[in-house]
Amino acid sequence: MINVGIIGATGYVGEELVGILLKHPDARLTNISSRTSSGELFSKIAPQFEGKTMLTCEKPDINKICSKSDLVFLALPHTASMDFVPQLLKHGKRVIDLSADYRLNDQKAYEKFYTRKHKDKLNIKNSVYGLPEIYRAKIKTAKLVANPGCYPTVSILACAPLVALGIADSGSIIIDAKSGVTGAGKKLVEGLLFSEVNQDFKAYKVNMHQHGPEINQEISKLLGKKVAVTFVPHLLPLNRGILATVYIKKAQSAKGRTQDLISLYKKFYKNEPFVRIRKAGDFPRLKDVVHTNFCDIGIEDCGDNIIIIAVIDNLLKGAAGQAVQNMNIMYKFPEKTALL
Amino acid sequence: MINVGIIGATGYVGEELVGILLKHPDARLTNISSRTSSGELFSKIAPQFEGKTMLTCEKPDINKICSKSDLVFLALPHTASMDFVPQLLKHGKRVIDLSADYRLNDQKAYEKFYTRKHKDKLNIKNSVYGLPEIYRAKIKTAKLVANPGCYPTVSILACAPLVALGIADSGSIIIDAKSGVTGAGKKLVEGLLFSEVNQDFKAYKVNMHQHGPEINQEISKLLGKKVAVTFVPHLLPLNRGILATVYIKKAQSAKGRTQDLISLYKKFYKNEPFVRIRKAGDFPRLKDVVHTNFCDIGIEDCGDNIIIIAVIDNLLKGAAGQAVQNMNIMYKFPEKTALL
Amino acid sequence: MINVGIIGATGYVGEELVGILLKHPDARLTNISSRTSSGELFSKIAPQFEGKTMLTCEKPDINKICSKSDLVFLALPHTASMDFVPQLLKHGKRVIDLSADYRLNDQKAYEKFYTRKHKDKLNIKNSVYGLPEIYRAKIKTAKLVANPGCYPTVSILACAPLVALGIADSGSIIIDAKSGVTGAGKKLVEGLLFSEVNQDFKAYKVNMHQHGPEINQEISKLLGKKVAVTFVPHLLPLNRGILATVYIKKAQSAKGRTQDLISLYKKFYKNEPFVRIRKAGDFPRLKDVVHTNFCDIGIEDCGDNIIIIAVIDNLLKGAAGQAVQNMNIMYKFPEKTALL
Amino acid sequence: MINVGIIGATGYVGEELVGILLKHPDARLTNISSRTSSGELFSKIAPQFEGKTMLTCEKPDINKICSKSDLVFLALPHTASMDFVPQLLKHGKRVIDLSADYRLNDQKAYEKFYTRKHKDKLNIKNSVYGLPEIYRAKIKTAKLVANPGCYPTVSILACAPLVALGIADSGSIIIDAKSGVTGAGKKLVEGLLFSEVNQDFKAYKVNMHQHGPEINQEISKLLGKKVAVTFVPHLLPLNRGILATVYIKKAQSAKGRTQDLISLYKKFYKNEPFVRIRKAGDFPRLKDVVHTNFCDIGIEDCGDNIIIIAVIDNLLKGAAGQAVQNMNIMYKFPEKTALL
Repeated sequence: MINVGIIGATGYVGEELVGILLKHPDARLTNISSRTSSGELFSKIAPQFEGKTMLTCEKPDINKICSKSDLVFLALPHTASMDFVPQLLKHGKRVIDLSADYRLNDQKAYEKFYTRKHKDKLNIKNSVYGLPEIYRAKIKTAKLVANPGCYPTVSILACAPLVALGIADSGSIIIDAKSGVTGAGKKLVEGLLFSEVNQDFKAYKVNMHQHGPEINQEISKLLGKKVAVTFVPHLLPLNRGILATVYIKKAQSAKGRTQDLISLYKKFYKNEPFVRIRKAGDFPRLKDVVHTNFCDIGIEDCGDNIIIIAVIDNLLKGAAGQAVQNMNIMYKFPEKTALL
Repeated sequence: MINVGIIGATGYVGEELVGILLKHPDARLTNISSRTSSGELFSKIAPQFEGKTMLTCEKPDINKICSKSDLVFLALPHTASMDFVPQLLKHGKRVIDLSADYRLNDQKAYEKFYTRKHKDKLNIKNSVYGLPEIYRAKIKTAKLVANPGCYPTVSILACAPLVALGIADSGSIIIDAKSGVTGAGKKLVEGLLFSEVNQDFKAYKVNMHQHGPEINQEISKLLGKKVAVTFVPHLLPLNRGILATVYIKKAQSAKGRTQDLISLYKKFYKNEPFVRIRKAGDFPRLKDVVHTNFCDIGIEDCGDNIIIIAVIDNLLKGAAGQAVQNMNIMYKFPEKTALL
Repeated sequence: MINVGIIGATGYVGEELVGILLKHPDARLTNISSRTSSGELFSKIAPQFEGKTMLTCEKPDINKICSKSDLVFLALPHTASMDFVPQLLKHGKRVIDLSADYRLNDQKAYEKFYTRKHKDKLNIKNSVYGLPEIYRAKIKTAKLVANPGCYPTVSILACAPLVALGIADSGSIIIDAKSGVTGAGKKLVEGLLFSEVNQDFKAYKVNMHQHGPEINQEISKLLGKKVAVTFVPHLLPLNRGILATVYIKKAQSAKGRTQDLISLYKKFYKNEPFVRIRKAGDFPRLKDVVHTNFCDIGIEDCGDNIIIIAVIDNLLKGAAGQAVQNMNIMYKFPEKTALL
Repeated sequence: MINVGIIGATGYVGEELVGILLKHPDARLTNISSRTSSGELFSKIAPQFEGKTMLTCEKPDINKICSKSDLVFLALPHTASMDFVPQLLKHGKRVIDLSADYRLNDQKAYEKFYTRKHKDKLNIKNSVYGLPEIYRAKIKTAKLVANPGCYPTVSILACAPLVALGIADSGSIIIDAKSGVTGAGKKLVEGLLFSEVNQDFKAYKVNMHQHGPEINQEISKLLGKKVAVTFVPHLLPLNRGILATVYIKKAQSAKGRTQDLISLYKKFYKNEPFVRIRKAGDFPRLKDVVHTNFCDIGIEDCGDNIIIIAVIDNLLKGAAGQAVQNMNIMYKFPEKTALL
């Protein structure tokens, strides 16, 4: 049994984390802190938790947090985590950071997309990118896990087998992604008002989304050379879930049809508890994974192009669920604990 | 042909007004002003108008507005209209104000619900409450029309025949109203974010909504004595439309069943171009009136109680459509012009 | 550890039941049957269960079901359950029926609203109405539990304290209820198509819904005399949840204001694990209870009238969750097991 | 002033057609027929039309229809139109068919995707594909206009300038399209129920949608050689609108950046009343075109690839609006009449 804390528990991701951890038999949620809502019962801020927890949301105090936690989750906005991580690590705590602060090796990209200088370059090098399907071995012993972004999680899982096995023409990867609104958090901007989003649909940050560099970094690592994908995110009028439709041109030498590709994906992910590959002609929809930690993938060969359709719940496999999956790996708990 | 202007054209109601007026054969929209978006092409702020109007949104300047307008619509937030109305009237312009500033005779109620002292008490007395079904004769010659609120419009039209004809037990009027989100405008508050409203439903301002006094005022006038209705508004996860389910206890002397009540409503509204009464067993839904200026009403007798279900589009019959209906009456244009 | 089966697992309620039972530490789901989808892996019919269960959906066969089950849940359409219940009881199995077949004592009402003669009048008398907050003692030993309807659950819980304690004027109970779409199941009718429901809102079966007699029966029992409430259901454009706004006239002798009423509700429900009473001025919304088994209640005194606002998830406290709560009571498992 | 009739007026497209034609100053809607709802007032079937038209929906009778119409619109399901068209043409009537029956020159493709043999091959040759931006000259004198499908309209308008001017690498056109639910009509299938579509998103008919051949046919004509695009449609949880995100690889010889491409699109469509090109960095959303006949297009150069985002209202520019635009062209009415 370990003790865990959460800093930043009042956003959508934070609430999901609380919900999962309260069900976890091997982890005890001992402290919740928030920069904005301290002093209140958590169940008052999030009434769905009434009767489930008596924890009070406190102002973040490193010493107090460290005295109560073996592991700390940070569910803070980008650029806020790097104020907490160095101290937590100094106290010997293990950390899972759900922000983007420790995901990018390229400092210039970080500063360009998150518009702030990084204050803790040292620990970037020591962080492990928390995508279990690719980095499980390193996650086991990691002190600091940089939990992946939602778009990168679904995009990398969709592409990885083709890229790693040399089937993709690396210059021709197109990711057309569609996300529900919780991906943007509770930001008070006109574009997120109900009357603006409902009955609407749009692309945004066309080929210039901050998750682009993260996807490029990981695809490049898998491939062994630097590539840039074409990445267009869209905003869906629904709360949860991301569907990515990925178009990959085959490398000239690549052979095989849909069934071969499916076999290849099944083999690549054969030990993965949260990746499910569909049979030929069957494609996943959001409904199949929302409120779960699964990533479902369907594949279709179209001659020159391969179409891959992958779905996740952005708040679970794309954030809080994956974070707990990482915790399970770090502490050798069965990987599915509290996630089924 | 008259010249008209709009102050406050960039909200949801303002955009509807622009749309209707651009189609109106007898009114020329000559100027649009806004306190927040001046200097820009209106079609840039509201791209759905590209190719339809070349008007630029200007900072409100009374002299300029008056030089270009016979009639001015004010689609401003509550408490902002009273800064403009006195000057417009002084310049001899006719005014249709879509805010609550000139609707309430009771200053205390105004100050309680809109939390500001009224600056123009004089003109309140001269204003006409712009509900054509009740006040058409006065609207014809009005200098200042106080266009009704959306909840009061649907509530009063639902109750009027029973109240005016003495069938209602005046102490027992319950209005359970459900409104789409545009009723609240484009306010940046967490409660109006898509991820909060979508898949949710709630009551709000339970028996203390600012439209309560407006409903009470008009029902009391119809009845000839002071009453207070029970009024509970709810927020629907959709953009447009209000449905009010009204429960009225019959006065002890009242007789007749559903069919008699329907006949009575049909007679009461027989010359009304925008009120449609359903036959027995048939009740209106939002879909029947959204994007129209109609108010549809269904009636059911249940013994002691009468149930009335009435629907409107909150942005049209509940705001911009009714405002243009009032303009048509004021200028003796056919009442349906630009509204069908 | 008990063995349980489900007949009718492929509807919305059935899927919820499967989900809860798979998480239940003291119940083993051993068989799933369906009249329409036999022979297929359940996870193929409901892909969100892939990796969670290997059960196959079988044609219902009483002997087979009885050989594998201590308790059987029936999640069948109304009028279908009475074909199975007598045989299951004869085999000595305990049964929780989620249909309306064993809820109504008044056969005429049943036949009027469900348009079929009842085939198993005998067992109606032996059934227990499965609302734990009222009938917990009887449920403990029941052979056959008639699990309440979704509207009756929320309506009765909202009214019970006022009715049971003589505060309600029994002739003046108005229930204005609003339900999400899953309440209607997966019926293929035009009125349930997305393009019809989305952006729409309507009342339906105005004061003639089949849940009316069920509400009347239970309110009458609590009161000790026969009453008929006014009940108007409405269809919300969302998937899950019911909100009921209840208007009750106070009995002439009744005293006390909002705070007194709240205290009274808290006392009435003080040992209830799934009823939460709000403090004054605070009203529940769907979001607070969707995906939970809670019923949240807010109360407001308005002088002559009392307003009660109550919410549940129609598929959980209104169906599958309450069914498992009943199972927990019947087998002396901790009542919250698998429901938090 | 011409007389027009509609066969098949009770679907979503039919209702839009009625609405537009009732506002048209130069066309008189004289008859409405439907195979399923004959004998009823149209305003009873579609209550939003009450007070707007007294037309009765009749059983389709060719002689009666021809005696009352100069032009007939067919808003029938695919494979139903070919039963009516030959007779209407024989009577000398002009016809605008909104089904797919006269769009495809390739009979094999028609039979494969619409699963029926064509009965009227003769008239296919005489039909004009009703996309005014490409075929205006032919439409002017056409006897039979095959009104384009919704996906083809937005896809072809998005691609046409790049294809016609040789900038596209013809082998690499990817169309990722997302449509609202009305595109599927009022079909009673489980996949279109509200509780299935709401909060969900999915791809369907991946690279095998019946509109694929129509897109390929027209892109091939523009290019002067046969090509096959990659076309993946998705279902959005909203009522109206299609957004297509198109990815086109540049031909090797192609030069120029975003601004040059925009200039090129503006020039290509410079006389088009219903195509609006966005400036650099600005992309259209559904909201900008829903309830209008516009197609809005945004363009972004990404080096090797060009991204084009185009939106239409599937029921207007994708069906009824374009049909009336074609009528306006055929009868030399100003092209925007009744469409602004």
